[in-house]
Amino acid sequence: MAQFISTQKRQGYAIISIAKEPVNSFDTAMWQALHAALQAVETDSSMRGVIITSGLQRDIFTAGNDLKELYAPLTSAQQYATFWEAQSRCLVGIHSSRLATAAAIRGACPAGGCAISLCCDMRLMTAGAGGAIGLNEVALGIPVPKYWAGVMVQVIGHAAAERLLLSGSMVPPKAALQLGLVDELVDDKAQLLPRTEELMQQAVKLPGGARAATKAGLRGDFDEAWLQYALTWEAGPRGFARITDPNTVASVGAAIQRLSKGGGKKQPQSKL
Amino acid sequence: MAQFISTQKRQGYAIISIAKEPVNSFDTAMWQALHAALQAVETDSSMRGVIITSGLQRDIFTAGNDLKELYAPLTSAQQYATFWEAQSRCLVGIHSSRLATAAAIRGACPAGGCAISLCCDMRLMTAGAGGAIGLNEVALGIPVPKYWAGVMVQVIGHAAAERLLLSGSMVPPKAALQLGLVDELVDDKAQLLPRTEELMQQAVKLPGGARAATKAGLRGDFDEAWLQYALTWEAGPRGFARITDPNTVASVGAAIQRLSKGGGKKQPQSKL
Amino acid sequence: MAQFISTQKRQGYAIISIAKEPVNSFDTAMWQALHAALQAVETDSSMRGVIITSGLQRDIFTAGNDLKELYAPLTSAQQYATFWEAQSRCLVGIHSSRLATAAAIRGACPAGGCAISLCCDMRLMTAGAGGAIGLNEVALGIPVPKYWAGVMVQVIGHAAAERLLLSGSMVPPKAALQLGLVDELVDDKAQLLPRTEELMQQAVKLPGGARAATKAGLRGDFDEAWLQYALTWEAGPRGFARITDPNTVASVGAAIQRLSKGGGKKQPQSKL
Repeated sequence: MAQFISTQKRQGYAIISIAKEPVNSFDTAMWQALHAALQAVETDSSMRGVIITSGLQRDIFTAGNDLKELYAPLTSAQQYATFWEAQSRCLVGIHSSRLATAAAIRGACPAGGCAISLCCDMRLMTAGAGGAIGLNEVALGIPVPKYWAGVMVQVIGHAAAERLLLSGSMVPPKAALQLGLVDELVDDKAQLLPRTEELMQQAVKLPGGARAATKAGLRGDFDEAWLQYALTWEAGPRGFARITDPNTVASVGAAIQRLSKGGGKKQPQSKL
Repeated sequence: MAQFISTQKRQGYAIISIAKEPVNSFDTAMWQALHAALQAVETDSSMRGVIITSGLQRDIFTAGNDLKELYAPLTSAQQYATFWEAQSRCLVGIHSSRLATAAAIRGACPAGGCAISLCCDMRLMTAGAGGAIGLNEVALGIPVPKYWAGVMVQVIGHAAAERLLLSGSMVPPKAALQLGLVDELVDDKAQLLPRTEELMQQAVKLPGGARAATKAGLRGDFDEAWLQYALTWEAGPRGFARITDPNTVASVGAAIQRLSKGGGKKQPQSKL
Repeated sequence: MAQFISTQKRQGYAIISIAKEPVNSFDTAMWQALHAALQAVETDSSMRGVIITSGLQRDIFTAGNDLKELYAPLTSAQQYATFWEAQSRCLVGIHSSRLATAAAIRGACPAGGCAISLCCDMRLMTAGAGGAIGLNEVALGIPVPKYWAGVMVQVIGHAAAERLLLSGSMVPPKAALQLGLVDELVDDKAQLLPRTEELMQQAVKLPGGARAATKAGLRGDFDEAWLQYALTWEAGPRGFARITDPNTVASVGAAIQRLSKGGGKKQPQSKL
């Protein structure tokens, strides 16, 4: 999957671009590839920051998980465990990165795409119509993973996160800004990356070691608990039991069919 | 006490109405009865939500705990433990319910009434004059129970909760809305239940299993710690020692006398 | 160091004034002296509150830690452990005090000064130009101590705290008020203490035992974890390893030199 992810290095930071048409869906190999790309930046001591963005033609950050990985008839306990571990190691890797991290979000940012962006230090988004961000799993009949919800709680507070999550809502850019779900909007697509780079250039000027140690103090306990829970509970028999629940199988099956009919064109946000 | 609590079932949700004149005070039997009413809704698989409201004549949600249960001369270590367990199991039961939960608040909502409403997923309140909501225990000389404070922290954030709790404040409807202590105001009493039902109808349309699992992820650890603390620390010798403290006995005794003189008419908010 | 700290008792509360020219820098003895002054108020049963303020000529609350205590060439593992313990016991002592606590902040309030004020129940600040507050350690190349960051998270929320801390920012009074970093501004220096006393007089009217028990419920678990971490991790070999890191030695050395040149006059905020 490495062919779908490209890394460009600038002075002090890198830009990781994800471009797997049509909607940047994440299966096991994609999570592993994104994680590997992040680690490659981290091991370069000249790098102090990373921007994650989409290289798709359409205005989609990523539609999140490939539903086939969550559809019991198409996977196995073993495969599901591998998938969940790859996904969780990548997300915890972003959240706990020593680097300054930014998500540059163009358009739709549902589910797993929202999770990736919430794990970054800052989120910029295009203001344009059609964009929306949120962990909309409940609307599709699937629980929001516990620590995805937890990251949203950190970013916008407990009550606001509960309201969004329990209603399966995605919110448009302006509402996302007001909630603190994103930090800044840009008027035009063309400004998205330049403005994100401008903020990143400020961030990487700061002493990297002190910044990283402070970030570890703020996030370390949470990330340790997250990985522990993901690898034992969610990737284990209890996690797999969840996706073999008949209601969940029906919900995910219906979502797959809906998406295959629409070719993912109309409702990229309904992917996980 | 079951005669004071009535449950009406609608399509997909139920309305639990509490009407023990004059102020819906909660002693052991009332906590048990409310808990039983909730559990009866939960075991009905056609039910996905519940609204809790007051059926009193006056504009009072509930005045909270019956002070006699907190007044050392009128209780015993054994009785206090039973009371505290009943209260805590009911509140944790509401907070951890698989159901979508809403409090429809008319008028005064002090102390235990505020705790019940904070345990719901959403709170609607009449905007009318005279209404107020808060955990006002400190003003009466009694500590706010640790996890009641914790639920308020979840709903309005740590700093705002500290300010309210340490000053023993109750806030009027508009301020409550601004703080996020309630989610929405209705202009008129007559709109309270219809509007709450309207929002509940939206909530119960969502896939119930995914919603419940997401809610459990957000609240489960907290609820487990709450019940553990309530049953061991608060319902145990250290909890009872608190209410036998001479200052607390004097404060609670004075409050009982004040309320018995006023007949509970003027200051329902000063009950616990 | 007791000569730098004076305590005046009023009706129900005390005012602790810190005046060690030029910038109220805190070495081991100063932390011990402030802690002792606090404890002396706490052991007086007629006292229910305390105000902490600066008695300096210039508009500085305190510049925080004496950098010599953090500069590896000028200290030892043993001395650093003693210093860190004194500092942490004082801060945790303020945060967990049974007293109502207020910081009356005139002017610059960087780093350790900000930590002291964040540990109080309320913060008032002069609105005047030149004032600023924040944990600006990262800008100086030093990590923000984990639980200092945690206290800021409690006061202004996780996302806002991360933004300030990771950018090493100090914010002027108006922005501090909007963030909730301070609770109220006063227009004029002359109003600072009178207004703080006015609010303190309200706070000490409330039943002190119930207030203290409620505060302990809100902060107790956090404070226990803080002290444990400070005494084992930070005051131990891993904490000392941090300040012997060559980058940190260089950063702290440069800051000391900068301050000794400027005599602490121009940039008191760049002390820790």
